[in-house]
Amino acid sequence: MTAPLTDLERLCVHTITTKSWDIETAARKFSAAGVKGITVWRDAYANRDIKATGQMLRDAGLTIVSSCRGGFFPGATAAERQTAIDDNRRAIEEAHELGSPLVVLVCGAVPGQPLAQSRQQILDGIAAVLPDCEATGVKLGIEPLHPMYADSRSAVNTLGQANDMCEQLKSPLVGVAADVYHLWWDPQLETEIARCGDIGALFSFHVCDWRTPTLDLLNDRGLMGEGCINIRQIRSWVEAAGFHGFNEVEVFSNRLWAMDQDDYLELIIKAYRQHV
Amino acid sequence: MTAPLTDLERLCVHTITTKSWDIETAARKFSAAGVKGITVWRDAYANRDIKATGQMLRDAGLTIVSSCRGGFFPGATAAERQTAIDDNRRAIEEAHELGSPLVVLVCGAVPGQPLAQSRQQILDGIAAVLPDCEATGVKLGIEPLHPMYADSRSAVNTLGQANDMCEQLKSPLVGVAADVYHLWWDPQLETEIARCGDIGALFSFHVCDWRTPTLDLLNDRGLMGEGCINIRQIRSWVEAAGFHGFNEVEVFSNRLWAMDQDDYLELIIKAYRQHV
Repeated sequence: MTAPLTDLERLCVHTITTKSWDIETAARKFSAAGVKGITVWRDAYANRDIKATGQMLRDAGLTIVSSCRGGFFPGATAAERQTAIDDNRRAIEEAHELGSPLVVLVCGAVPGQPLAQSRQQILDGIAAVLPDCEATGVKLGIEPLHPMYADSRSAVNTLGQANDMCEQLKSPLVGVAADVYHLWWDPQLETEIARCGDIGALFSFHVCDWRTPTLDLLNDRGLMGEGCINIRQIRSWVEAAGFHGFNEVEVFSNRLWAMDQDDYLELIIKAYRQHV
Repeated sequence: MTAPLTDLERLCVHTITTKSWDIETAARKFSAAGVKGITVWRDAYANRDIKATGQMLRDAGLTIVSSCRGGFFPGATAAERQTAIDDNRRAIEEAHELGSPLVVLVCGAVPGQPLAQSRQQILDGIAAVLPDCEATGVKLGIEPLHPMYADSRSAVNTLGQANDMCEQLKSPLVGVAADVYHLWWDPQLETEIARCGDIGALFSFHVCDWRTPTLDLLNDRGLMGEGCINIRQIRSWVEAAGFHGFNEVEVFSNRLWAMDQDDYLELIIKAYRQHV
């Protein structure tokens, strides 16, 4: 069995996890608590100087792990798809300014449009923005989303599909963001994690938990240990696949957002040591 | 493109769809509306003579398509698993009394128990009740459930897994209940439907729709046409795989259960003609 994490060197917390804190507060609190990495929701630097915000995070001793999010490439019309491409180009440029090495992609889907068509539009959209990645060095992480989001959030719903897309796109700048919440149920998970490592595409690893019952499709994730996911086993698979980056805590939860966020950060760190 | 269904000869409605009607009312209303098949939730014949209930349905001109449900084989202890096996034996005996040829299985899962272990317990549980199927002729339909139910309702979450289980169990009495709600997102769906037909395991076909947004994980299904599933395309795949049985309307919906159920039955029939 993979050993517990005894230090916080690889702990990253996503700004969405402590949503009510602005980015300056998050930076100060995370740093004081010993968190080493931060992933930044694009909303978190709205109305701020992005370069200065990146410097502020680095000055707080935090590694910027990724920014979030690009994607939503499918659209019913060419104009909608171009709007999405333009927005992704901005996301890449913003990541470059912030000093974030990776933009996580929630790839998108159009309700009622055949999934195969949305998947092709995702491939086309990523290909269209790859020159921006090459110019800046910013990478893209395709995040396969749980099948319950296939209607409107992502037509990429398994790690196998994300791996296939990486192989088709053949760029060292395109890989995968693997999140236990989306992937834990998949009987092919161990195999596809190994494959993802083999093709050099395992860019990031997100943790949280699946609660029973889950009361809301979007905002009822659990903190690690509150649910049924064997997170440590999945971490052992990603590490066996060669991943030794940050373990990123990304929790969307109305329940946990309503807590005192200082208390919550303590819980996050405790849960990280016990369950990741 | 597969043609619309111009008659109701293959329309089956599940008693859960019009939950507030008792089985006598459902039989009378379904029959008067031209519905030809009925699937019976086990609760629907509680406190009734099961044989007489079956006769009542046949007298109303309805074909009993299946009874629902067995399953929930996984358990943390041997005693719990034996309780599940005993309950499934009762479900098979009840189906035999009712005159139902098929028991649909919601296979079960134990939150936190490794999915591979639950899957093995499901295989073991089905094997344990197969003699009852052989004695009565009642078949079992493994229903792969959407991955959002992998925590507590079913560790069988893709048609590929259900097909694998049928191949392992090697019994002509064990097959699959394919429901568009659970399976529509799967990139392997067309392939696995064809395989299911090839191995002689495609026992039933359930229709409803996936709404955007879906407000509840259990009871917010859509009527056909209210959501994003291309039901007719999936029907074309099951028919190409050799299935020509009933198209079974199974809708769990707090919203639709709250409607006048006579009006709702009219909508069901209209939706069946337009979208199945």
